[in-house]
Amino acid sequence: MKIDHPPSIQRLISDLKRLPGIGPKSAERLAYYLLSRRGEGILSRMADDLRSVEENLRPCKECGVWTEGEETCAVCRDPGRDRGIVCVVEHTTDMIAVERTGGYKGLYHVLGGSLSPLDGRGPEQLNMASLKERIRGGNIKEVLLATDADVEGEATAVYIVNMLKEFPVKVSRLACGIPQGGDLSFIDEGTLAKAIAGRVELKGDV
Amino acid sequence: MKIDHPPSIQRLISDLKRLPGIGPKSAERLAYYLLSRRGEGILSRMADDLRSVEENLRPCKECGVWTEGEETCAVCRDPGRDRGIVCVVEHTTDMIAVERTGGYKGLYHVLGGSLSPLDGRGPEQLNMASLKERIRGGNIKEVLLATDADVEGEATAVYIVNMLKEFPVKVSRLACGIPQGGDLSFIDEGTLAKAIAGRVELKGDV
Repeated sequence: MKIDHPPSIQRLISDLKRLPGIGPKSAERLAYYLLSRRGEGILSRMADDLRSVEENLRPCKECGVWTEGEETCAVCRDPGRDRGIVCVVEHTTDMIAVERTGGYKGLYHVLGGSLSPLDGRGPEQLNMASLKERIRGGNIKEVLLATDADVEGEATAVYIVNMLKEFPVKVSRLACGIPQGGDLSFIDEGTLAKAIAGRVELKGDV
Repeated sequence: MKIDHPPSIQRLISDLKRLPGIGPKSAERLAYYLLSRRGEGILSRMADDLRSVEENLRPCKECGVWTEGEETCAVCRDPGRDRGIVCVVEHTTDMIAVERTGGYKGLYHVLGGSLSPLDGRGPEQLNMASLKERIRGGNIKEVLLATDADVEGEATAVYIVNMLKEFPVKVSRLACGIPQGGDLSFIDEGTLAKAIAGRVELKGDV
């Protein structure tokens, strides 16, 4: 008879193995670590939190930011935000990185990623149409492109510049200051704040 | 108003941060990865599996191996195992590693760790008393010490040798030497010295 991990542990290991950056050995170690904390309520709490993420989160119907409990996110609901400027980011985590600088008071638009044909992400897979609709609405005076500074992020920015050419809206891009190839959510707040303050106008002269 | 991750995500991040080897940024990345797989049933399955680990696992009442659904583990219940030899391991994962060799047909005893006074693990924190009781029972003829080959594992082995001195039982230790496929010039001096000291006679029949 073949002896292996108990079935529940096997299942937990296979769940953990699916996570990015976690291989079979790490998954085994994490599963047994969790098992060792059995009886402390840690596993049930984590189970509850996973369920809560599954059930309670939805994209804001205005901007696409992940939000909980309301149809629109806290930024879109805030009457104190400048409704004339929209910061376009790839992910909710990028929005939070921008918020943490304290240097931006406008709205957001979450694309859900960057253009990456190799990964099967074209404009249809991103929230591009809804961005165009928001701009068509006419209240927005400036679009600040805050996609990552990597190849996909730059390509996405260029795509949006072209997409918005027909509208009388200023399109800007985060300034130099962010390191080339950097991931927005990993950049220190000071650098990001400088990049926001020094944003450059792109339209027509990319 | 400070904008941060939605509350459920914040909680999930703080759960993940507690896991060994996962820092704040990795936890954030994992939480948003899980969020991105929302609607695919992955989160609920993982929640169920965490609950199952919490509720269904218990240590085998004979040997201490983590087991599910029964009071004793599959090895202890197996009538085909040799009940005269006990392999002493630190963790259930070590037992599984030994099982995977297919070369051992005896029973096990899981200590639950190694002696490590700096981490507050003395003999009382490990399953030492139950090991002594099993040996006192008299059916066991050999104890194979399969603790790790690090300082704590060696100290634990020495402790058990002393603890079992009074009993008429053979006590053995895993051989220490060069790993299969090992390149001699890359092996540390300690291992090589032990491999030389523990050399085995081949009698011309390699």
